[in-house]
Amino acid sequence: MKRNIIVGQSGGPTAAINSSLAGVYRTAIDRGAKKVYGMLHGVQGLLNEHYLDLSDYIKTDLDVELLKRTPAAFLGSCRFKLPGIHEDKAVYEKLFAILDKLDIEAFIYIGGNDSMDTIKKLSDYAILTGHSTRFIGCPKTIDNDLALTDHTPGYGSAAKYIGTSMKEIIRDSFCLEYPQGLVTIVEVMGRNAGWLTGAAALSKCEDCDGPDMIYLPEVVFDPEDFKKKVKQLLTKKPSVVVAVSEGIRTADGRYVCELGNTSDFVDAFGHKQLTGTASYLASFISKELGAKTRAIEFSTLQRAGSHIASRVDILEAYSVGGAAVKAADEGDSGMMVTLQRTSEDPYQCQTAVKNVHKIANDEKCVPREWITKDGTYVTDEFVAYVKPLIQGDVSPVMVDGIPRHLYTPKELYKK
Amino acid sequence: MKRNIIVGQSGGPTAAINSSLAGVYRTAIDRGAKKVYGMLHGVQGLLNEHYLDLSDYIKTDLDVELLKRTPAAFLGSCRFKLPGIHEDKAVYEKLFAILDKLDIEAFIYIGGNDSMDTIKKLSDYAILTGHSTRFIGCPKTIDNDLALTDHTPGYGSAAKYIGTSMKEIIRDSFCLEYPQGLVTIVEVMGRNAGWLTGAAALSKCEDCDGPDMIYLPEVVFDPEDFKKKVKQLLTKKPSVVVAVSEGIRTADGRYVCELGNTSDFVDAFGHKQLTGTASYLASFISKELGAKTRAIEFSTLQRAGSHIASRVDILEAYSVGGAAVKAADEGDSGMMVTLQRTSEDPYQCQTAVKNVHKIANDEKCVPREWITKDGTYVTDEFVAYVKPLIQGDVSPVMVDGIPRHLYTPKELYKK
Repeated sequence: MKRNIIVGQSGGPTAAINSSLAGVYRTAIDRGAKKVYGMLHGVQGLLNEHYLDLSDYIKTDLDVELLKRTPAAFLGSCRFKLPGIHEDKAVYEKLFAILDKLDIEAFIYIGGNDSMDTIKKLSDYAILTGHSTRFIGCPKTIDNDLALTDHTPGYGSAAKYIGTSMKEIIRDSFCLEYPQGLVTIVEVMGRNAGWLTGAAALSKCEDCDGPDMIYLPEVVFDPEDFKKKVKQLLTKKPSVVVAVSEGIRTADGRYVCELGNTSDFVDAFGHKQLTGTASYLASFISKELGAKTRAIEFSTLQRAGSHIASRVDILEAYSVGGAAVKAADEGDSGMMVTLQRTSEDPYQCQTAVKNVHKIANDEKCVPREWITKDGTYVTDEFVAYVKPLIQGDVSPVMVDGIPRHLYTPKELYKK
Repeated sequence: MKRNIIVGQSGGPTAAINSSLAGVYRTAIDRGAKKVYGMLHGVQGLLNEHYLDLSDYIKTDLDVELLKRTPAAFLGSCRFKLPGIHEDKAVYEKLFAILDKLDIEAFIYIGGNDSMDTIKKLSDYAILTGHSTRFIGCPKTIDNDLALTDHTPGYGSAAKYIGTSMKEIIRDSFCLEYPQGLVTIVEVMGRNAGWLTGAAALSKCEDCDGPDMIYLPEVVFDPEDFKKKVKQLLTKKPSVVVAVSEGIRTADGRYVCELGNTSDFVDAFGHKQLTGTASYLASFISKELGAKTRAIEFSTLQRAGSHIASRVDILEAYSVGGAAVKAADEGDSGMMVTLQRTSEDPYQCQTAVKNVHKIANDEKCVPREWITKDGTYVTDEFVAYVKPLIQGDVSPVMVDGIPRHLYTPKELYKK
């Protein structure tokens, strides 16, 4: 590389997104980039010329290691959809003027579906205008729903968090006895794709039976059948634990969390406050079966739990960042780095680059054949697919009993 | 020891309660106990003669290490309040007949306030009837609210989980920008004592500013003042994070969670079921200030998170278990093992035994002077007290990417 590069982070954060950033930074420097800029809050920030020089923050090898272990988007993130080129040319002109001013050779964007749409549009615009900046996407999402890649960095660590925490919850659930039994409903992220919820099955091992049922958004949810199955389980076990996706819907297409919309409380916009999916199902079961219930949401914790990150995930995220820079350096643009599983056993994986036009705005769900026939669990194939992605640990750098992260850019904390 | 001992676990589980069980087992065997029985589901199970021989489960040194790393009550737990001796003598006669049958020399009960009430009553009964079995309590509670002990095993690991997760949540909260700002309310366990909620301050370190406010149940909560303070913070920061105890109450004594919905459910001890404080406050702030809000409950996770346990806590829990057996072997009864901090800097701590009559049913809250004047944070003294308790790690024994625990007794899973 002869000029500068700029890198941004976009969409929901993960425990591995900063490892990709570390990979981008290191590889760019190694390949001769003069400066590595970071956009603050992605393209949205860049449009306001909010960026920084990453070398002001990453000064030592230890800083690189800390960055790999830092959850959430180090540079801040955004959910910003670029308008179509024909809709608003001015936005593109502004953005490319900024890129010119910064003498940008390569633009790397670490993100999910929407971020790949940004890469697609920017590389299209560069081609249309004969601009030399190259645009490469770097996959990231805990949801694992990107097309054309075996899996996405960020997913493995979230899956490891879910498997580990689920096992601890199951263990806890057998401690106390309740006259009508205990039913624990654990809500996992994933509106349309059940990859994360399915990871609850990772808690099933020699010393744990795993959750009793797992409900993915790929399958229609039937509350009555659910009740019947829980009732049946309660005749055999004192504690029943169920993992549900936040996105499960009934046959008429309604989200389960909407079924509980009986509260009169409205938010600032006059919208009724929706209870969570787990919370709704817990009250439903409590009311219908008289069992003691618990609703648990993994919430932000599942995407920010870098203290229990997967080593495979963190290292792959790092190499994907490096591969993005390499691709740009070798002349690619409008491409996304992908992970290709080259061997199942032993697990082996390598990076490739694929046309971002085939990826953007597409969504990869769990194949129906990886969900059991009755729709209440994932199959062994699903587990065999996920297992390699949660292997190994990245020991946190503990300072005074708490994991240390890399200092956040002060700009993110100010208004 | 010349005869047998029996050990039980009671009350809410923790990440360290099984380390105390391991300490009891090892010390009992070392001191010559013939058999070490474990009550299944505490005294309640024992009354139905539900118990096991621990040597069937702890066979190797590795098993002891796994037990130390196993969350929740290995033997199952109960919330069972023994009747007064004058109220129901038959229960005592039944229990002591079982102890005689099993040739029990010492009865060790690992638990919190309510469990110490059990030790008190049983040792009183033994004195009244001239029975030779000795009864020793072993402190355990994430709530850290037991009197006469510097702190309780289980608290340090929960505090470490809370400090670590809080830091990850704070980091995550600065990623995305919202027009009216983001307010995250994190709900922490602790009905009357704010020890756990105060541990949120552990996230404050060189690379993290910590939560903006911390509300303990020891101080009256004023929703209007809270709103004013959040509004003020939002003028300076894009993200505000607040830790609240599930037990915070308004001036009229009402739990904040009751302001949103009312549930009359009470447990066996007459304690009200609390949930939804964060959820209520998130809706309140969203409605009043128009900010985007998030409600997060640490829920079961904070007491079961053995994968991020504190080494100090796990080792102290182990030694407390051993000290209980030693006390019984040396003739003590009606006593609880306590932890005495003998030095602040460097932190040093040793076990002692104190009269359980002075402990049972008493509750130790956070001293008012360890909470800031305006009641929205803990002081440096609080942090200095907690910090030593979260030091060091107990590396989980990872098998196939997930922490391994000791096999649970099958009896717990059956109905």
